Amino acid sequence: MSTFKINKLCIIGVGSIGGSLACALRSAGCVNTIIGVGRNTENLERAKLLKVIDDYSTDIASTVADADTVLVATPLGAMQDVFTQLATSLPSDCIVTDVGSAKQHVIDSVKKAFGELPKNFVPGHPIAGTEKSGVEAAYAGLFKERRVILTPLPETDKAALETTRQMWQTCGAEIVEMQAKHHDEVLADTSHLPHMLAYALVDTLARMDDSKEIFDFAAGGFRDFTRIASSDPQMWHDICIANREQLANALHAFNADLQRLTKAVEEADSDFLKETFTRAKKARDQFCG
Amino acid sequence: MSTFKINKLCIIGVGSIGGSLACALRSAGCVNTIIGVGRNTENLERAKLLKVIDDYSTDIASTVADADTVLVATPLGAMQDVFTQLATSLPSDCIVTDVGSAKQHVIDSVKKAFGELPKNFVPGHPIAGTEKSGVEAAYAGLFKERRVILTPLPETDKAALETTRQMWQTCGAEIVEMQAKHHDEVLADTSHLPHMLAYALVDTLARMDDSKEIFDFAAGGFRDFTRIASSDPQMWHDICIANREQLANALHAFNADLQRLTKAVEEADSDFLKETFTRAKKARDQFCG
Repeated sequence: MSTFKINKLCIIGVGSIGGSLACALRSAGCVNTIIGVGRNTENLERAKLLKVIDDYSTDIASTVADADTVLVATPLGAMQDVFTQLATSLPSDCIVTDVGSAKQHVIDSVKKAFGELPKNFVPGHPIAGTEKSGVEAAYAGLFKERRVILTPLPETDKAALETTRQMWQTCGAEIVEMQAKHHDEVLADTSHLPHMLAYALVDTLARMDDSKEIFDFAAGGFRDFTRIASSDPQMWHDICIANREQLANALHAFNADLQRLTKAVEEADSDFLKETFTRAKKARDQFCG
Repeated sequence: MSTFKINKLCIIGVGSIGGSLACALRSAGCVNTIIGVGRNTENLERAKLLKVIDDYSTDIASTVADADTVLVATPLGAMQDVFTQLATSLPSDCIVTDVGSAKQHVIDSVKKAFGELPKNFVPGHPIAGTEKSGVEAAYAGLFKERRVILTPLPETDKAALETTRQMWQTCGAEIVEMQAKHHDEVLADTSHLPHMLAYALVDTLARMDDSKEIFDFAAGGFRDFTRIASSDPQMWHDICIANREQLANALHAFNADLQRLTKAVEEADSDFLKETFTRAKKARDQFCG
């Protein structure tokens, strides 16, 4: 069994995901140096103070020059610019991977920046994270027993893919490979759509005349249901834009079903309501335990 | 300060809510005898075994004959029949209160059964409960620091109202009074609508071809978001039917907003998306803490 080791890891975007990877690899003792890169030195200083990173820089080119692995963990909207900088500075043997929630969008950005897809580029997405953002929310256990989806391309080097697998496995994650398009569909359904519903519900209620009173009477279920509406608006804006095609498909499917359900409520269609709720409860109990 | 005491409490429908009231009043030491009434003797036997009730009966008339207070805690769909039986058996000085999630519907059922509204009828609704149902989910602390909404009528006796207030306060609840119609609007927005969205989302995904895989990739946020879709289908069917007018209003308001959001996703309308998410996050953080 090979011993997995990274000499210099460069994390561009030290938030909850990038920071948690740093913490997990550090606690597994398989990385020598972790350098954070970003535009916000205040955040980077905090990350250093929290010992999430060893040091930081605001300059991508000089930092990646002697790195083994570069993790791009910025919001999706900042990635094009990051990849453009990497295109002229990334050493040819350095692995570059990312954590973006919309894989085709990231792949397109890399292609645009590099002209072609570099063989050491491994697109990835850890299915983890909470409604909390920022390096303060980072912790070593975030990826434990969680899935990380890798969407390698025909161009992707086998060794680079294997190293990226090992990196995430070291964090306790289970690795799954799939096509980028399929990833984008599955995530639109299970993550992006629910976030839209939570945001839309809270916003619908917040814009009502008696919103203060309405929220006062929201019980426990509402709190859980709307937790994801506390997620970072900029990050979710970026996801919506990046995965808009698949997300629009998911929204249309849901809209149609919700309108059918609304009709059933209006018409007091007992059979339809009972069947729908029973089917949903069974599916939820079966899959979510 | 008066010492609140019930000699004989009769609970019709010993599920998580009725059972929790029994546990809370018992643990506060302010009830002598609690008799459960229902049609399912297996459930009642279990409730007795769990010491939630002292004894049980399947006959409403004989049980309420010497009761001080009757709590109707059946699903909404069973209430009309219960009130019809109470109409010919309830002692005139006995308080009858309920826990139904749709107050106008309950009031209409009582009126239909009794011919007029009895002065000792106090409509109520504890804003508590989880996705778990049945007497096994009952516990004394369920109403602690939770709201109980009472919707007294012009006919309601002041002393009966006061006794019902004290009963819930003894369980640790905070009492709020409002009009039945307003209760039904607020609950449609904050509870019934979110349940529809959770049920509809899980059902939309469950009916997809690759539903097994889809649920496999659902992360933590999805689990919280869909927890309420594990609620009892019969109970939610009854709530939909009973509060269908207000629920349909809430669904229409949400449908319109979601379609506007869908359009913004399709058109990559950055400003709209950022504004909506920011407003929602602010409202959620402010009201849910």
